[in-house]
Amino acid sequence: MSLLVVGSVAFDSVETPVDKIEKALGGSATFCSVASSYFSNDVKMIGVVGEDFGEQNIQMLKNHKVDISGLDIVEGEKTFSYGCVYRDDMNIRDTLFTELNVFEKFDPIIPNEMREIPFLLLGNIMPALQLKVLDQMTNLKFTVCDTMNLWIDITLNDLLEVIKRVDLLVVNDSEVKMLSKDSNLIRASKKVLEMGPKYLIVKKGEHGALLFGEGKIFSAPAFPLETVFDPTGAGDSFAGGFTGFLTNSNEINFETMKKAVLYGSTLASFCVEKFSTKGIENLSIETIEERFNEFLKLSSVN
Amino acid sequence: MSLLVVGSVAFDSVETPVDKIEKALGGSATFCSVASSYFSNDVKMIGVVGEDFGEQNIQMLKNHKVDISGLDIVEGEKTFSYGCVYRDDMNIRDTLFTELNVFEKFDPIIPNEMREIPFLLLGNIMPALQLKVLDQMTNLKFTVCDTMNLWIDITLNDLLEVIKRVDLLVVNDSEVKMLSKDSNLIRASKKVLEMGPKYLIVKKGEHGALLFGEGKIFSAPAFPLETVFDPTGAGDSFAGGFTGFLTNSNEINFETMKKAVLYGSTLASFCVEKFSTKGIENLSIETIEERFNEFLKLSSVN
Repeated sequence: MSLLVVGSVAFDSVETPVDKIEKALGGSATFCSVASSYFSNDVKMIGVVGEDFGEQNIQMLKNHKVDISGLDIVEGEKTFSYGCVYRDDMNIRDTLFTELNVFEKFDPIIPNEMREIPFLLLGNIMPALQLKVLDQMTNLKFTVCDTMNLWIDITLNDLLEVIKRVDLLVVNDSEVKMLSKDSNLIRASKKVLEMGPKYLIVKKGEHGALLFGEGKIFSAPAFPLETVFDPTGAGDSFAGGFTGFLTNSNEINFETMKKAVLYGSTLASFCVEKFSTKGIENLSIETIEERFNEFLKLSSVN
Repeated sequence: MSLLVVGSVAFDSVETPVDKIEKALGGSATFCSVASSYFSNDVKMIGVVGEDFGEQNIQMLKNHKVDISGLDIVEGEKTFSYGCVYRDDMNIRDTLFTELNVFEKFDPIIPNEMREIPFLLLGNIMPALQLKVLDQMTNLKFTVCDTMNLWIDITLNDLLEVIKRVDLLVVNDSEVKMLSKDSNLIRASKKVLEMGPKYLIVKKGEHGALLFGEGKIFSAPAFPLETVFDPTGAGDSFAGGFTGFLTNSNEINFETMKKAVLYGSTLASFCVEKFSTKGIENLSIETIEERFNEFLKLSSVN
């Protein structure tokens, strides 16, 4: 089934302890769309870029059969640019600069013909914009929402309103504790579930992820990566892989979501192996299945 | 098969954010022995206590059919006493006092009739004492060793010597990074494996545990506890449950150890639900199996 992805499109300048890259393709909508394209053949992306966006980036998205008719290319403006440097353990990043550019006026108008799309992935953007998207959709079957600590800090009320209206929320372990004001991960997660969403995914980086819902808990392992080259986009790739797999499933239930979590983790694990979207650009279905099976093996007991 | 457990026996005074207890039974040998007694009917414990140890503690160990003929009760001396307070998130504890008492002169002499025991669990004590135990054993089939950050800090050379001579080392995630001087958990674990042991278990608290060996990795989930009443002894209970299950298995290999990790996690999860050894004193086989099955369900994908 069709999937609508809304989020940011950006140029990322990233410095890690081993290497650096400048003005590479990034943004939540970008990673989400590419990751989901491996599972869904009808991904439509909503976003905004400047005239500097570049033909090769458009071509990459088209190669993944992502419908970019909803990508607004604004003449005379520049694409959102973000710069950061990762510290030694790759768990903390310091922002070097944020140039919103065309993103400052991003107004996600969903074209009429896309308002009946049943699956919606709200990539990480300001909650007020996520609400605006929700208001325009007329036939939603399942909505996944990603967010970040910044919005918990500066625009909590809008975020709480979004959380009430989506089916599944994706956050990381520190964010779920912030949102619930509870330091116990399980209590915190249950409190966030009570805020509205039917399902909750808590990403824990090198410790895997937890899925909550239907009164059940699923614990997914992390892929044992010896080298994390660049963590940028890992969360978006997770959300994209997860939601993409879901749109292609016959049933939306806890059992399906367990597999979706592992496919999301699979895409995230490929993402961090290279800069920008390079790690998830050229995957084959066989490569994805192979790693998915390694995920299965990691926690299987005979 | 028989299991020899060597470690500390102590009185613990523990304060948590919700409650406190004074002079309660504790120590690595105690938790390890009780936890392993659910799987092995021939657990022999080596340790030292003062004349204040108390009949009820002896009786509790006897109730678990732990052979305490190797427990040295020294007249005129006091039992090792330890006091600590846990901070709000229960992940950090501050030591209030350490009264070594009789433990200061602990010299683990293994009785002749126990030197041929095939399974050895070296509970967390000073590495020099662990070495002394290893020197006396004549027919070891499998040795599990637990340790702590303190020994990495103050007596690293002895610890490295121990690590070389045991089959499996149990540490937590911060300790494996300290030992290897590597911040990536997977690289760190592989480096520690190269230091000698055939297998390595990395405990990660609320994030579960990892088992390494035979070129494979197993990721075990954590039990989703909403309340951790007292973390004291969780690591020892894990090591006891793990090793106990192993002594009762026909084959010592990676597949068996996966189950052993989940049984160890099961015992640890019961341990933290009450003060002292109370959480693991009165378990039935059915209660243990029930929680073991919940562990299996937590990460199973159909």
